[in-house]
Amino acid sequence: MASMAALFSALSPIIHRHSPPFSGSLSPLGRRGRGGRRMRRGERVSLTLIEPDGGALVDLVAPAGPTREARRREMAGQPRVRLSRTDLQWVHVLSEGWASPLRGFMREAEFLQTLHFNCLRLGCGGVVNMSVPIVLAVDDSQKRAIGEHTSVVLVDAADNPVAVLSKIEIYRHHKEERIARTWGTTAPGLPYVQEAITDAGDWLIGGDLEVIEPIKYNDGLDHYRLSPAQLREEFIRRGADAVFAFQLRNPVHNGHAFLMNDTRRRLLEMGFKNPILLLHPLGGYTKSDDVPLFWRMKQHEKVLEEGVLDPETTIVSIFPSPMLYAGPTEVQWHAKARINAGANFYIVGRDPAGMSHPTEERDLYDAEHGKKVLSMAPGLEKLRILPFRMAAYDKTQKRMSFFDPSRLQDFLFVSGSKMRNLARMRESPPEGFMCPGGWKVLVEYYDSLVSSEGGKLYEAVPA
Amino acid sequence: MASMAALFSALSPIIHRHSPPFSGSLSPLGRRGRGGRRMRRGERVSLTLIEPDGGALVDLVAPAGPTREARRREMAGQPRVRLSRTDLQWVHVLSEGWASPLRGFMREAEFLQTLHFNCLRLGCGGVVNMSVPIVLAVDDSQKRAIGEHTSVVLVDAADNPVAVLSKIEIYRHHKEERIARTWGTTAPGLPYVQEAITDAGDWLIGGDLEVIEPIKYNDGLDHYRLSPAQLREEFIRRGADAVFAFQLRNPVHNGHAFLMNDTRRRLLEMGFKNPILLLHPLGGYTKSDDVPLFWRMKQHEKVLEEGVLDPETTIVSIFPSPMLYAGPTEVQWHAKARINAGANFYIVGRDPAGMSHPTEERDLYDAEHGKKVLSMAPGLEKLRILPFRMAAYDKTQKRMSFFDPSRLQDFLFVSGSKMRNLARMRESPPEGFMCPGGWKVLVEYYDSLVSSEGGKLYEAVPA
Repeated sequence: MASMAALFSALSPIIHRHSPPFSGSLSPLGRRGRGGRRMRRGERVSLTLIEPDGGALVDLVAPAGPTREARRREMAGQPRVRLSRTDLQWVHVLSEGWASPLRGFMREAEFLQTLHFNCLRLGCGGVVNMSVPIVLAVDDSQKRAIGEHTSVVLVDAADNPVAVLSKIEIYRHHKEERIARTWGTTAPGLPYVQEAITDAGDWLIGGDLEVIEPIKYNDGLDHYRLSPAQLREEFIRRGADAVFAFQLRNPVHNGHAFLMNDTRRRLLEMGFKNPILLLHPLGGYTKSDDVPLFWRMKQHEKVLEEGVLDPETTIVSIFPSPMLYAGPTEVQWHAKARINAGANFYIVGRDPAGMSHPTEERDLYDAEHGKKVLSMAPGLEKLRILPFRMAAYDKTQKRMSFFDPSRLQDFLFVSGSKMRNLARMRESPPEGFMCPGGWKVLVEYYDSLVSSEGGKLYEAVPA
Repeated sequence: MASMAALFSALSPIIHRHSPPFSGSLSPLGRRGRGGRRMRRGERVSLTLIEPDGGALVDLVAPAGPTREARRREMAGQPRVRLSRTDLQWVHVLSEGWASPLRGFMREAEFLQTLHFNCLRLGCGGVVNMSVPIVLAVDDSQKRAIGEHTSVVLVDAADNPVAVLSKIEIYRHHKEERIARTWGTTAPGLPYVQEAITDAGDWLIGGDLEVIEPIKYNDGLDHYRLSPAQLREEFIRRGADAVFAFQLRNPVHNGHAFLMNDTRRRLLEMGFKNPILLLHPLGGYTKSDDVPLFWRMKQHEKVLEEGVLDPETTIVSIFPSPMLYAGPTEVQWHAKARINAGANFYIVGRDPAGMSHPTEERDLYDAEHGKKVLSMAPGLEKLRILPFRMAAYDKTQKRMSFFDPSRLQDFLFVSGSKMRNLARMRESPPEGFMCPGGWKVLVEYYDSLVSSEGGKLYEAVPA
């Protein structure tokens, strides 16, 4: 397993080779900065947010009112496809435009471009990045039932209609090839493959998606689920002139915080007046030994409450995508989706979206490949990649700091499994490793696992 | 195994979506057409050949004379890396610029771009297609021996120096990931993997290549091994205003010929005055049940001698690359290399570079993926892709023609294995399937296999 220490990090020089200079020009969209503590009173910070992929944010939710009601009526008599938990998460992702300019589950031409080139060609000749297949599987009997229909109704586990997929195209689901080209291995035991591919149908159905109403989970966390459009509004409201995104699926410890605060400091040094942090935990499917979303959000709340991160310059929001654990392929998706949400800087560490090899005693991916691939990925040129140096717990200073190999003995690397073991045993981590309130949440979580397998109760399932 | 019938084909409409119009403008490079039988006497056909990838054809052969001698002297005391048969074929490929703008075995940045994006970004921001890794493996002990040296001498099986690799970079050879991302499977039994990867070292060494002198095989076929520069010269000498390339690794039967002649006819209809066919058999490593190069070239000679293809408008030459059998990934390489050789039209059929799945009862690739992927591949926009319809043996006409599904019973599909069995049994194929001289060569080849395993004797090994 990739060491959590890998994530304790700090900015090294920006390595993206093809970044256009950030456009900080004045625009009518500029609003008065509210959260920028370092701004002078009365100073106006204005910005044009980074352009969404394809030029416009995709919104696939039917407008409330007559249109929505008409859609409901049209559904009668159409074939139905029941969505799995991850399918529904992808419907959510697509509906809000995280995958702009994609307007639905991939047809074959998009699927093939994703598998072979990690990008999609636009009509105008440009490309956008698209590294993970967003596809919907159907089996033989569903395919037969669909027959010559040109659209299908997508329903949830309780058979409630969720969306319509129209102008459909059905094509072969070559699972082995999909897995090999996405994960760079076909070893058994890849979590997302087991969750969403192995037992899925042998056909894929692509088409134009329209969601009847916004996807909600009713798990007490929906207020954290800001769409890309809502995030963009919020960045503008706060007068951000730079937005730096941090993707995570783990509790925030002081190493992360150190890095994020250091990033803000550097952006200020670079001349930005009001950089805003998008702390963006992934909210879809995660493997069973990851801390569930409910507990992570509780922990993140503490981190902000206790001032480890500054609430005035931080937006915490949930990224609705499932987790693939597909390393260098997936990190591109994580970055691309944040462009659509308005981020123009993306922080990347060691072994992003990585995990242990499922059958061999080693990490699945080369820990350096993620950021290298990200820095060269077609369609991500406008995003500035911020790779960071490794940080670790400095015993002499009793806090997280940049790892200095010349003082190897002074540093402590707290791996994910070590952290979990400490929390499980109700032991304290080294002083300065995590804010006390945040740590308490983790201990509580592991307690709940022992007492009632409560962790499972809180996994996000769209309502 | 993909049916040979898959290759009996004819042009369907050009599907490439982003082709710039062919530049047939007059230029000082124009020469009097020699081979264009349909040209009027005295008419000048002129052309600008398609530009090589990166703008200039790479040539990595040290100039004869003092430079070459200096190179030989500089080699003393440098670490040596012995090349395998396929390594040497890649040295050949690189040295002549088939992989332009690549100037040597891939460093990690090129390797990663190839695996993930099937293309390389140029300094100017454009991309060129590059879908298969061209890499050189070294093992732990070789890596240790290289130590801090910045260049190595590459030697052949007899320890003769062949080339220098300088400004080297050594990085991990992640074999599983390389295989999965290149072939879309990791099933055991992939021929190229067994030949060149399984037992190769755990490191890759990239760098700038310089070859001491042109690679020769001394197998009686070197006169067929025209470099991209020589092919370009020949196209100009013949006054070609369109060059259409046909990649093959099998004997030419009348289905192929039908297709190639039909292509020429259509290009003439499109207004080209002198389209030249590049009949371009692959000359590097092939799997053991393919017909060896020596016999294929004998067979191709007969096809031209007996007038099935017109020698005046056809250039037969050997493409020195090894065969990967990597389907949609490899067909891009086959097409890209022909751009560098001056071809601006590329013919593609069903299941190009495909084979049977090594462990399952099915073809490894979806037969339609090759041409779809090719038509969307980044960096191949300037090449016009000519997909073709399936042809088969029409029993009513006793010749190959387009397959007409409404007369299914009239057609005969001669698979590769059926053809081999017929030749092995010295039986005749259906009349009109292949020219008699060409068929005789095949019978001879299979005879030689039985009598002396002669086939193996003639496999191309660089001298």
